[in-house]
Amino acid sequence: MSKPFVAIVMGSDSDLPVMEAAFGLLDKFDIAFEVRLTSAHRTPDSVRSYVTDADERGCAAFICASGMAAHLAGAVSAATLRPVIGVPLDASLNGLDALLSTVQMPGGNPVATVAIGKTGAENAAYLAAQIIGVADPEMHKKLVDERRANAEAITARDAHLQKTLQERRAN
Amino acid sequence: MSKPFVAIVMGSDSDLPVMEAAFGLLDKFDIAFEVRLTSAHRTPDSVRSYVTDADERGCAAFICASGMAAHLAGAVSAATLRPVIGVPLDASLNGLDALLSTVQMPGGNPVATVAIGKTGAENAAYLAAQIIGVADPEMHKKLVDERRANAEAITARDAHLQKTLQERRAN
Amino acid sequence: MSKPFVAIVMGSDSDLPVMEAAFGLLDKFDIAFEVRLTSAHRTPDSVRSYVTDADERGCAAFICASGMAAHLAGAVSAATLRPVIGVPLDASLNGLDALLSTVQMPGGNPVATVAIGKTGAENAAYLAAQIIGVADPEMHKKLVDERRANAEAITARDAHLQKTLQERRAN
Amino acid sequence: MSKPFVAIVMGSDSDLPVMEAAFGLLDKFDIAFEVRLTSAHRTPDSVRSYVTDADERGCAAFICASGMAAHLAGAVSAATLRPVIGVPLDASLNGLDALLSTVQMPGGNPVATVAIGKTGAENAAYLAAQIIGVADPEMHKKLVDERRANAEAITARDAHLQKTLQERRAN
Amino acid sequence: MSKPFVAIVMGSDSDLPVMEAAFGLLDKFDIAFEVRLTSAHRTPDSVRSYVTDADERGCAAFICASGMAAHLAGAVSAATLRPVIGVPLDASLNGLDALLSTVQMPGGNPVATVAIGKTGAENAAYLAAQIIGVADPEMHKKLVDERRANAEAITARDAHLQKTLQERRAN
Amino acid sequence: MSKPFVAIVMGSDSDLPVMEAAFGLLDKFDIAFEVRLTSAHRTPDSVRSYVTDADERGCAAFICASGMAAHLAGAVSAATLRPVIGVPLDASLNGLDALLSTVQMPGGNPVATVAIGKTGAENAAYLAAQIIGVADPEMHKKLVDERRANAEAITARDAHLQKTLQERRAN
Amino acid sequence: MSKPFVAIVMGSDSDLPVMEAAFGLLDKFDIAFEVRLTSAHRTPDSVRSYVTDADERGCAAFICASGMAAHLAGAVSAATLRPVIGVPLDASLNGLDALLSTVQMPGGNPVATVAIGKTGAENAAYLAAQIIGVADPEMHKKLVDERRANAEAITARDAHLQKTLQERRAN
Amino acid sequence: MSKPFVAIVMGSDSDLPVMEAAFGLLDKFDIAFEVRLTSAHRTPDSVRSYVTDADERGCAAFICASGMAAHLAGAVSAATLRPVIGVPLDASLNGLDALLSTVQMPGGNPVATVAIGKTGAENAAYLAAQIIGVADPEMHKKLVDERRANAEAITARDAHLQKTLQERRAN
Repeated sequence: MSKPFVAIVMGSDSDLPVMEAAFGLLDKFDIAFEVRLTSAHRTPDSVRSYVTDADERGCAAFICASGMAAHLAGAVSAATLRPVIGVPLDASLNGLDALLSTVQMPGGNPVATVAIGKTGAENAAYLAAQIIGVADPEMHKKLVDERRANAEAITARDAHLQKTLQERRAN
Repeated sequence: MSKPFVAIVMGSDSDLPVMEAAFGLLDKFDIAFEVRLTSAHRTPDSVRSYVTDADERGCAAFICASGMAAHLAGAVSAATLRPVIGVPLDASLNGLDALLSTVQMPGGNPVATVAIGKTGAENAAYLAAQIIGVADPEMHKKLVDERRANAEAITARDAHLQKTLQERRAN
Repeated sequence: MSKPFVAIVMGSDSDLPVMEAAFGLLDKFDIAFEVRLTSAHRTPDSVRSYVTDADERGCAAFICASGMAAHLAGAVSAATLRPVIGVPLDASLNGLDALLSTVQMPGGNPVATVAIGKTGAENAAYLAAQIIGVADPEMHKKLVDERRANAEAITARDAHLQKTLQERRAN
Repeated sequence: MSKPFVAIVMGSDSDLPVMEAAFGLLDKFDIAFEVRLTSAHRTPDSVRSYVTDADERGCAAFICASGMAAHLAGAVSAATLRPVIGVPLDASLNGLDALLSTVQMPGGNPVATVAIGKTGAENAAYLAAQIIGVADPEMHKKLVDERRANAEAITARDAHLQKTLQERRAN
Repeated sequence: MSKPFVAIVMGSDSDLPVMEAAFGLLDKFDIAFEVRLTSAHRTPDSVRSYVTDADERGCAAFICASGMAAHLAGAVSAATLRPVIGVPLDASLNGLDALLSTVQMPGGNPVATVAIGKTGAENAAYLAAQIIGVADPEMHKKLVDERRANAEAITARDAHLQKTLQERRAN
Repeated sequence: MSKPFVAIVMGSDSDLPVMEAAFGLLDKFDIAFEVRLTSAHRTPDSVRSYVTDADERGCAAFICASGMAAHLAGAVSAATLRPVIGVPLDASLNGLDALLSTVQMPGGNPVATVAIGKTGAENAAYLAAQIIGVADPEMHKKLVDERRANAEAITARDAHLQKTLQERRAN
Repeated sequence: MSKPFVAIVMGSDSDLPVMEAAFGLLDKFDIAFEVRLTSAHRTPDSVRSYVTDADERGCAAFICASGMAAHLAGAVSAATLRPVIGVPLDASLNGLDALLSTVQMPGGNPVATVAIGKTGAENAAYLAAQIIGVADPEMHKKLVDERRANAEAITARDAHLQKTLQERRAN
Repeated sequence: MSKPFVAIVMGSDSDLPVMEAAFGLLDKFDIAFEVRLTSAHRTPDSVRSYVTDADERGCAAFICASGMAAHLAGAVSAATLRPVIGVPLDASLNGLDALLSTVQMPGGNPVATVAIGKTGAENAAYLAAQIIGVADPEMHKKLVDERRANAEAITARDAHLQKTLQERRAN
């Protein structure tokens, strides 16, 4: 079987800056990914044909980012039975509209929804890596290592904070 | 040209009791209508083929009713350039999720959103009649007559209320 | 019959920059339109007389833009049986107050509500064109062409994105 | 000058049970009041002519009750410069739509908004009495007496509670 | 009887810029007013003694402005039976917390709530003038004149808009 | 020093059924408590005098329960510098109004807010016990024991669940 | 490698009726699953040790159901790098608190959030099956078959609806 | 017994600027405090071990600050029976997600929640001081003095305001 990859689908190229956070993490985990600009409403056939094609080529998970009445993840979920991860973007109402439009899916079409905006973009990448890691122990190990590194980073920042506070108190 | 008709599309037959309010009004205005049970996520191809077909057969407006992450009206709007009327249903969160998923559509795919639930079902029928009435003076006249009747009904109920209050005060 | 036109009604000239998005699209579709500054609360008689007059002169649809407790579309809907399109503006509470004040209309007075703010202004114009297109095949064709152009624009932007990503990976 | 009275305006007779709370209090304060069923959207001329007439006959304050996109108080405020009290009713979304549609009025058309539902109906009557009491010391005295009685009622209920708790502890 | 005046109570001097909108209107209507900085929580006795004193000196209405868990209007309403007008300020959550804390008062302690922020400050002044106008025909006349002027201003701005649009189309 | 006690203050005796949850826990921890029915708005002097008196008699913490524009906890916090625990009750808007009115207090007047409704009533009692436990090791030990018992109860319910599921699968 | 299984973790046995929807689907897909009653706050060590153990025994995904300030999924995500699916339950505020507490996770700890309540329970099972299906073509095929069956069920219900409507019109 | 101290726990050093408001007040009240950077999700063991250790060393109260799905205070509450004060931070959705994730805790694990953001940071310090003050009359006296000073500051600012307004009127 070919190596699984992740397909990132966005409704607008103005979403790129937010989604860059996902690109970086996927690169870090050495997960191949494609990025596709396509719209649930303006280019529905293209969504459908791209998703079907990516599915057949071994796509392990789809990451869909959109704002407002965010239907993109739902449209992708209708065209595949691979896990679909939804990133609600804040284009209006602080992203509450996109969150509800993404998460409140009817039975049979789950969208694995993550946080609004940039944090969600990051977590979409982590989640995709976790999904691949279910059957790929090496990927799983990368996540374990990454988490350890993250924990150590916090510990280091805490140590730095303790020093700063101590110095402040000394003065 | 054949007489225009209205196509009502619902995601679930549990939505029927709410949408009956629209059926009654369309009958009253003598507007032909079809009702179709189909799902943006479970039967996306059927949505698409039905909408394209109805569009070609002279459908003047689509009425789409769904709850939660209500994508049905959006999916219909992607398949036609006829006016699409969205009725958000209260299946969760008092219908706020359905409202935002229906109304916050991106540029180029308007959904003419009406009120949540049964009142919205009624207003979807009124709006469809108004749309047909733009080029059909007879339909427009029916709406003018209906509004006059509605106004007279309020006046009558007010007269009844005045009598009741007067009697109460007399005692 | 004279050519149908669209009447845009706003409560404040500070709404002009948002509504310009509608002007441009209506011009593009070659739809005649009028713009009127009038207030549901400060100049209710003027709203009423203007709407009645526009209605008689062949107005096909009204577009009403207002914020906060947005009553303007409702006031217009009380004076006409032409389709009334409501654009909720974000003047407070991210536009949630304007959205609810516009969309939650009682039975018999539908307001075809579109998205909050600038996207809503665009979609109001698209919806007006769709309504006119119901009986005007030429207008309908313009919308079909516009959508095709929009779809092609996305495809082009996607192609550009693919090239950018490829170059980035090459480096 | 004739004795001032209060005009209660409702959009639907289904609002009567909620508004009865106001009737009782106005009777208690011996304030004359009228009740009128009329609709901002279905019978706008009737709203306008009634309000103008009531204003000229010495109406001291208007109480307007409506739900959903509650425009009634706003429509009344456009027709008079007497104080307009708005009672948002819970017909959908827990009454949040009615609250925002009533309170977020533009400059120059204040609606004195009170709580959602039955408590709001009561407070509308209290507020009307306070407004009349500004120039009517007797009315003001009635309110002072009523508040004292209310305070005493709480004190009595607290005494009852202390006894109940004491008895419970004794067992 | 001495001339009635309005008492404006604020919780923080940072609220002054918002409330200036009320000062200007009260001056315009020639209504005497006092401004007092005092806090429902930090200086509750001062609130109480000031309100009692102002009440006895002929205060016709209190205007209370505060943000967050806005208790100031409620605290004032507990100390007087004069009409209390509440202006919710946007210090957090877009002012939704202040709005709900101001408007959802229990029976017997109405707070006449107006819009969030600067528009609310203006409307508080208009409402105070309307309340005084109930028994003061001259004040009422000033409001009628002001509204006419406001309506004329809109008509003038509309005329200006028509000219601008005409010129734009000519080019 | 006399044994510390807890003072529970409620705005209405209709709140009793919800607050019983707190009574039971305080009894369980053997914490003396008083219950007082009093209103921030109807009996403000009584709130003030009771709180001052309870404070002087050794009250360790106040628990305040109220709904809607819940000002009671704030009014208590203005009269004491003992910890004030606020329980928002669901009397409208699912308790969101009471939550925001309780928690969003200005600087210097904290209200230690717990969950809406019955769970909040329980947690108010737990929190009061924790506050007393800061200087009372015996009380602290009771809480440690209670938590262990709670944990064991969950473990027992889980064991029961395992058995039920096993039996179901066996059939 | 042993067959992957799903671990369902719930905070309270009162959540069982809602989660039964997931049990049925997992059985249908022939996915082994365990159900564990444990609490992020009352039995945090048990959460941690159970999750670590299940992870080592080959758990493919965790499904976590909880209401209010729903921390359970987050606590599970902190103890494993397997995909964690969160089902927000409606125990208060229509489930909005549980939704936000589940979905708005910080970077590095994604929770794949699905809809509130019973629909979410169903979708959690579908999503778990999709995750397993990434590396298990047989499981993936079951999902494809299930979706086809679901689509056919809708088509059948639509056919039934068409017949009902036709009969009604015939009368 | 050693002098009680306060432990401040934060999920990110980006929260430091907001929490500085608490540091200043604790210094003012001469309350010893520690600040620890640690994460409920990335370093759960460190949270647990730190809290247990701090608890044993005499920590009187924990202050926990976090945003989004704010689980930190809950995680701390699971590891101690000392009072836990939660400060919801505004990292998204105006802090509403953090507020609900902090306050809606299940029975047995109260989090004493204060206002969103900087005001909450201040009130966390005040509340910690009040909790210590329950058994420490000197601390309680400091709070009484601080409140008096705060009240005097308001009185002084009001005096300044009166002067400013008087001068303005004189001109």
